[in-house]
Amino acid sequence: MTDRTRPIGVFDSGVGGLTVLRKLAALLPDEDLLYLGDTARVPYGNKSAGTVQTYTHQCTRFLLGQSVKLIVVACNTVSAVALQVATDLSPVPVVGMIQPAASAAIRSSSNGKIGIIGTYATVGSKAYEKTIRALDAQHSPAVYAQACPLFVPLAEEGWHHHAATHLIAEEYLAPLKAAGVDTLIMGCTHYPLLADVIGQVMPGVRLVDSGEESAVVARDILTAADEAQRERTTPRRIDCYITDRPTTFAAVAERFLGFPLSNIHQIAIDDLPVLHEED
Amino acid sequence: MTDRTRPIGVFDSGVGGLTVLRKLAALLPDEDLLYLGDTARVPYGNKSAGTVQTYTHQCTRFLLGQSVKLIVVACNTVSAVALQVATDLSPVPVVGMIQPAASAAIRSSSNGKIGIIGTYATVGSKAYEKTIRALDAQHSPAVYAQACPLFVPLAEEGWHHHAATHLIAEEYLAPLKAAGVDTLIMGCTHYPLLADVIGQVMPGVRLVDSGEESAVVARDILTAADEAQRERTTPRRIDCYITDRPTTFAAVAERFLGFPLSNIHQIAIDDLPVLHEED
Repeated sequence: MTDRTRPIGVFDSGVGGLTVLRKLAALLPDEDLLYLGDTARVPYGNKSAGTVQTYTHQCTRFLLGQSVKLIVVACNTVSAVALQVATDLSPVPVVGMIQPAASAAIRSSSNGKIGIIGTYATVGSKAYEKTIRALDAQHSPAVYAQACPLFVPLAEEGWHHHAATHLIAEEYLAPLKAAGVDTLIMGCTHYPLLADVIGQVMPGVRLVDSGEESAVVARDILTAADEAQRERTTPRRIDCYITDRPTTFAAVAERFLGFPLSNIHQIAIDDLPVLHEED
Repeated sequence: MTDRTRPIGVFDSGVGGLTVLRKLAALLPDEDLLYLGDTARVPYGNKSAGTVQTYTHQCTRFLLGQSVKLIVVACNTVSAVALQVATDLSPVPVVGMIQPAASAAIRSSSNGKIGIIGTYATVGSKAYEKTIRALDAQHSPAVYAQACPLFVPLAEEGWHHHAATHLIAEEYLAPLKAAGVDTLIMGCTHYPLLADVIGQVMPGVRLVDSGEESAVVARDILTAADEAQRERTTPRRIDCYITDRPTTFAAVAERFLGFPLSNIHQIAIDDLPVLHEED
């Protein structure tokens, strides 16, 4: 009965989620992947929870309309403030960024001190703290969170190794360094592009990539449900839908993804189903 | 017949236009001001022209619905790629950022070398170059443009004097310095907040503030049309409408405006009239 050939749906506010798509593509080479980037309204990280929830509703409905078999919410901000919106709406499994990364950080930490970096919205939500405490109530690790809003534009500009990026990282990460964390969750899908600089500023600290951890969870869910694609005879397909196509998109996307996108489709914002609710 | 008490309408993608509102408030102390910041979809500067035109249509219609007597498009990106959309729609005068700043730069420059800094969208549009050539076809000044995308988040974060900001400014402005410009248009409403750093990197260069120049043009239009508010007996009113209210909004707004906003109204994105066209 199950149609294993349906694609995995992935969505994000913009290009950041392409670092997650990259991990999924590597871990699940036989799966078709369908990505939605809401580039007309990017970024979500400095917007209110209510607005992010409205946008999440629209993006989830778009993916469900494409008959996906699983949804990866490839954005920490959405996962932090609006995962329930996607879960409530979706008949197929929804994998967010928070729980997989929180779980990996708990497994990684020896000294019980975990750092988290993310957008204002992610940090303000305290979603990581709550999840870590729920997953490890016994040891109750100490959690230190820091918003790093400038990391997103630095990653998008490709200033991965610039002296200014180093200076900014030193300033943002100083409190986490002082706290002595041994594990740091990169709680924003842009941050893996700055992993070298972050690693230099935090030597000896294990970096957790939320996209990588969620890809493992997605694979395990498909395998357990016997929905993993197998014995395919055609090459795998990756489709990318975006709500706006800025001139720099293809180049930035390739840098985030690690390979060029061949199937980019622009959709109008009006094509996203509109939410009509009483709030 | 004319109702001089109608407010001046001002719109921008977010908080940047508040530096323009600040200049208008100072130059026109008797006028009521109505500001619209499309904070649910900010920023516009890295989006395509078509998307910016759609948003401009909605914002213009919102202001016209508030019976404004003049519209200031307090965003260089909108002025560069979508001013015509606002002008075509509006029965009242529309003042953009480009022409006033281009005109001021031509008056300022002695050596005929003018620099322009702005968003990708503004620089890519070549709107400043075209306007400067049209206004001064005889001398045809040499124009050097540079996109400075990191200046927007640095200004919003309040890193006005940080060492990293200085490093980034040095890198962005090096080609303009090498070209020997004697006048530099700050072609983005965020940049006046970084005027100190920009001035340090470009000593002896005259900085043109697009918001300041457009405020002068707005005043002159109202005076010429005998629409300037006069002999008012009540305190002037400033109303601010935003499409999203992030937690940091009030603090960032006060830094951009120079004084606190007392009348902030949040409107839903659905309250903005939707564009239905055949494009």
